[in-house]
Amino acid sequence: MNLSAAEQECESREPQHYLSKEEVVAMETELLSDYRFGRPQLMEILGHACAVAITKAFPLSSLDKRQPTVLVICGPDQNGCVGLACARNLRVFEYIPTVFYPKRSPNSLHQDFTVQCEKMDIPFLSYLPTEVQLINDAYNLVVDAVLGPETELAAVREPFTSILTTLRGVKIPIVSLDIPSGWDVDEASVDGINPAVLISLMAPKKCACGFLGTHFLAGRFLPYDIQKKYELNSPRFPGTDCVVKL
Amino acid sequence: MNLSAAEQECESREPQHYLSKEEVVAMETELLSDYRFGRPQLMEILGHACAVAITKAFPLSSLDKRQPTVLVICGPDQNGCVGLACARNLRVFEYIPTVFYPKRSPNSLHQDFTVQCEKMDIPFLSYLPTEVQLINDAYNLVVDAVLGPETELAAVREPFTSILTTLRGVKIPIVSLDIPSGWDVDEASVDGINPAVLISLMAPKKCACGFLGTHFLAGRFLPYDIQKKYELNSPRFPGTDCVVKL
Repeated sequence: MNLSAAEQECESREPQHYLSKEEVVAMETELLSDYRFGRPQLMEILGHACAVAITKAFPLSSLDKRQPTVLVICGPDQNGCVGLACARNLRVFEYIPTVFYPKRSPNSLHQDFTVQCEKMDIPFLSYLPTEVQLINDAYNLVVDAVLGPETELAAVREPFTSILTTLRGVKIPIVSLDIPSGWDVDEASVDGINPAVLISLMAPKKCACGFLGTHFLAGRFLPYDIQKKYELNSPRFPGTDCVVKL
Repeated sequence: MNLSAAEQECESREPQHYLSKEEVVAMETELLSDYRFGRPQLMEILGHACAVAITKAFPLSSLDKRQPTVLVICGPDQNGCVGLACARNLRVFEYIPTVFYPKRSPNSLHQDFTVQCEKMDIPFLSYLPTEVQLINDAYNLVVDAVLGPETELAAVREPFTSILTTLRGVKIPIVSLDIPSGWDVDEASVDGINPAVLISLMAPKKCACGFLGTHFLAGRFLPYDIQKKYELNSPRFPGTDCVVKL
């Protein structure tokens, strides 16, 4: 069996545990029911941490374009909601986010996070340019909050299949939240989108094991018992930082 | 009219606006209804920011006692709920908080934040030692999350009157969240408790105008339109910091 350098590193770097889809679902259920975390609370913690990770990967001073523009593409499920919270926190950090959120969830949580963005004067696009060059020219980076571990890939339809095609074509860096959209939770994709940065939420997922880009972990709030139960062995977060580079 | 040096500084330092009780109530109502922030979301943002401020005022390495113990006293209203969130975030930052929360709110939000603390193995005291020296000896500092701007002072009864007496007697530093407990929102108290550190939530209140201790502002998330409407003129938050020293 041939392992890539990254896979070998992953295998030998015993500590960090990469979660399977079943573990992701079980851990989240526990956090919400036993530990009594609220969804708006979790969305805020995670969206804020994603925005902080983006400031580390792409500081304002490092951006090419005249304006610190960021395109945030949000899907219909939880990943999209974290994207909305991330967009708002990016605005607080003086980036200029634009949101594309084509299938709005009827869930009141998603609606609240949408209003919070709108009230911060964050523009929402009514469609995504099919000409990829327009995206490359207008934005410094794209935040991919389209599909998360909770998404059933077999059920993905338009407009998300077109969005994934567009994301495969963009030349500006992609920052994926939790998993790269369209990837299976349990294994890396060879022909899927190829993010420059991945921000794992709470714990990295199996598909990220061989990930070669910049990899952050967000979610320092996890109770110790949960960390122990799932044998996460996450690295220490420096100071009061809410993210850590893996 | 004779003004103290601090009051004069406050009068001349035009920028920062100090809110009256009416403004506090109006701003919070707007955030919850028009801006659609959720209470658990706000509690988490503010409790986290308070914990970060405490790490700045009292870094782990600066504490006298052998253990980084902190006593967090939580009241029955919103201030107490921020205190619970603060305690949990302090635990995440490797402090050893103990909570005293004598009048538990039946509100599910408070219950959730209580369970979150309990599940982090944070001990809850069943009574507060009347012998102040025991508190001075056991803890490095006390977080005062007892009474907030929402409290009707005329209605304050036991056990809170005794708690305030105890707080007036402790020799270890007190960190008050939002307003020093027992102070009126609109004016400083001459015979009330005397915190070493005050962490104003979202905006400082009128009573803090002449405050001579270390003063932090927590609540960077405030939408720009709210900041403009209430002419807050808050200082810039450095980097991605969620608190700033006033």
